[in-house]
Amino acid sequence: MHRKVWNDIEKIRTNSPLVHNITNYVVMNSTANALLALGASPVMAHAPEEVEDMAGIAGALVINIGTLSDSWIKSMSLAMNAAAKQNIPIVLDPVGAGATPFRTQTVHKLLADTTPTIIRANASEIRALSIKGAKVKGVDSTDSAEAAFEAGRSLARQNECVVSISGQTDFIISGESKYLVYNGHSMMPRVTGLGCTATAITGAFAAVNSNPFEAAIHAMIVMGIAGEIAAEKATGPGTLQMHFLDALYQMSESDIAGRIRTAPLSDLTDINSKP
Amino acid sequence: MHRKVWNDIEKIRTNSPLVHNITNYVVMNSTANALLALGASPVMAHAPEEVEDMAGIAGALVINIGTLSDSWIKSMSLAMNAAAKQNIPIVLDPVGAGATPFRTQTVHKLLADTTPTIIRANASEIRALSIKGAKVKGVDSTDSAEAAFEAGRSLARQNECVVSISGQTDFIISGESKYLVYNGHSMMPRVTGLGCTATAITGAFAAVNSNPFEAAIHAMIVMGIAGEIAAEKATGPGTLQMHFLDALYQMSESDIAGRIRTAPLSDLTDINSKP
Amino acid sequence: MHRKVWNDIEKIRTNSPLVHNITNYVVMNSTANALLALGASPVMAHAPEEVEDMAGIAGALVINIGTLSDSWIKSMSLAMNAAAKQNIPIVLDPVGAGATPFRTQTVHKLLADTTPTIIRANASEIRALSIKGAKVKGVDSTDSAEAAFEAGRSLARQNECVVSISGQTDFIISGESKYLVYNGHSMMPRVTGLGCTATAITGAFAAVNSNPFEAAIHAMIVMGIAGEIAAEKATGPGTLQMHFLDALYQMSESDIAGRIRTAPLSDLTDINSKP
Repeated sequence: MHRKVWNDIEKIRTNSPLVHNITNYVVMNSTANALLALGASPVMAHAPEEVEDMAGIAGALVINIGTLSDSWIKSMSLAMNAAAKQNIPIVLDPVGAGATPFRTQTVHKLLADTTPTIIRANASEIRALSIKGAKVKGVDSTDSAEAAFEAGRSLARQNECVVSISGQTDFIISGESKYLVYNGHSMMPRVTGLGCTATAITGAFAAVNSNPFEAAIHAMIVMGIAGEIAAEKATGPGTLQMHFLDALYQMSESDIAGRIRTAPLSDLTDINSKP
Repeated sequence: MHRKVWNDIEKIRTNSPLVHNITNYVVMNSTANALLALGASPVMAHAPEEVEDMAGIAGALVINIGTLSDSWIKSMSLAMNAAAKQNIPIVLDPVGAGATPFRTQTVHKLLADTTPTIIRANASEIRALSIKGAKVKGVDSTDSAEAAFEAGRSLARQNECVVSISGQTDFIISGESKYLVYNGHSMMPRVTGLGCTATAITGAFAAVNSNPFEAAIHAMIVMGIAGEIAAEKATGPGTLQMHFLDALYQMSESDIAGRIRTAPLSDLTDINSKP
Repeated sequence: MHRKVWNDIEKIRTNSPLVHNITNYVVMNSTANALLALGASPVMAHAPEEVEDMAGIAGALVINIGTLSDSWIKSMSLAMNAAAKQNIPIVLDPVGAGATPFRTQTVHKLLADTTPTIIRANASEIRALSIKGAKVKGVDSTDSAEAAFEAGRSLARQNECVVSISGQTDFIISGESKYLVYNGHSMMPRVTGLGCTATAITGAFAAVNSNPFEAAIHAMIVMGIAGEIAAEKATGPGTLQMHFLDALYQMSESDIAGRIRTAPLSDLTDINSKP
């Protein structure tokens, strides 16, 4: 598998796909930096006057509701429709779904309108979207990815899209296909917006790989490996963030070959048998 | 005193209190990172549709007017009211009060509506709020904390709240009680938003310590010590910012015991007799 | 020339001019940090209720359309008018002009209303503003500065302002005067917002140097040298960004004297004869 991941990275570095983000204020800078470090070309644009134009020239559209306000929802819908019409892949991150009714309802409205190619979220958000009354504390996950697995499966089935759930183990689900990514480091949740960065990077992979299941898996592998490399050099979340960007920038084929830890999932009982 | 500071840090790391921030665009990322590094769980949300829900599940509410616009004022009021009703502590940072009439008036309006638990600001802002016609240049302080001391006292009395004034020496005032924190480093004002970070962190301490005077003091001690540790490793404000986050993440009881420099203030003539 | 650059830096460090930015969400934090590291005092304010007051007390106004929305255009116009009336220098960065009609039209509208002192942009944006139908991909430049040279000349002539075009070689144009700055490093475009940082820093230099052609040249020299110093210490764009801020903070007269690489341009055939 490492060859396929590397192939996508080379394509991103060579083609520098434009990734159009309508995302939250907290992570605009850090996700733009991650996309640039990886080799993609980020643009942030949210005005209703231009989102259709921008989505139309992009290689992928990333929608993230992290600091939602009413006027942005319209722009998200416009951009998603424009992207869908031109078969431009759409990655949706329902940040904080379940924390307030406003967020949950907005995601359901966006999903009713246009189907994203990939939903990328943490376990709590995935549970909130498919289980009524699930409780979420803010934007950080309080559920394990395992706990969200069944919810993710039903979400993928209902929306006929790929679902990518981040956590200590990442789960990527597409129809009957399920894949696990074990890469990553426990210090990563202590840097704000690394979940949102996973979403943005998933957009970059979706821009160069027409198989969204693969794109979602490859993105989580690269996120996790960059986090591992960074954690070896970091003394805390501040230095982790900087080394994470450097790791994305410098990542080599042998980094991937040497560190990749993944498994297809045929049976849920396999989940805890890490390699 | 270092035991009580450490006790609060342990509570933050164990309970990971949700801190709801309605704050400015400049510092959303850096204050979220500081809260995560310390062990709290930050959420940024500003839509009127959800701020009452979010404030209602939070351990503390942080209001910061740094990049104010009219539509946000309503959300700030809604969130402050919701928090006050449930006795959730509110920390208000009147960024740039005095620089424009719009900012000064907005702060007076917010204060007339709901009393915050703690007002945390720099000296120029505190002076602008209690002295008519005081001049402020932008958002950086041009007054010493000493110069703002009397203004802070009257502000604390009028609003029956704690006032925490940052500067080379920090002053924390509550009724007749006054406390000085000498910790900190002269390079800190060269990193944007470290004042706002002090405010956010004050929110985290207020979430775990029901005595807001103590919470405000402990927050300024931890800010100052993290800044000192970071400055020893930094070669400028860029590396300072990263090491500051690492220092929050790694701070130990012995760091606090070894570095804490504070004093109760009984007489204003003590101000310049640093330990 | 290095003496004149150094003279401006000393003035910035001594006077700490207030630079009022109406800028995009992505770079608010990073440009504020760059201005602080250099010695200036940044303020970000965008509310129509206060932009005239804020621009009126500033040493320079920086307008950047990177994450444009309709409600901000009015504030940009108000601030530009207020600054122009008081002869406060205005630096305009038309981020992403050409990428969507909305951006191009907004820049033309702003230019029709008030003449900025300096337009600072990348090559693609400059081309889009003076050549109808020029195509731009997002916010990253796909043209060389050389390709934008003639477009920049006509833009400077039409608007009677200085035009500063960043790229591998920077071109600064004022009437018949043209200047080249060769400083910089190839890793710099992999950090988001370093173009916007060049614009913000140009504001700081314009606040202390009444000759905007010199201010624009000095800013690009300092940007480039800080980038070179940072790149020698960096292992990727993450660490580059931190060392860049440290380099601005620590820059000495001998750094400038030892590294400055510039040339006046009398003939376009000189462009590629780098020193």
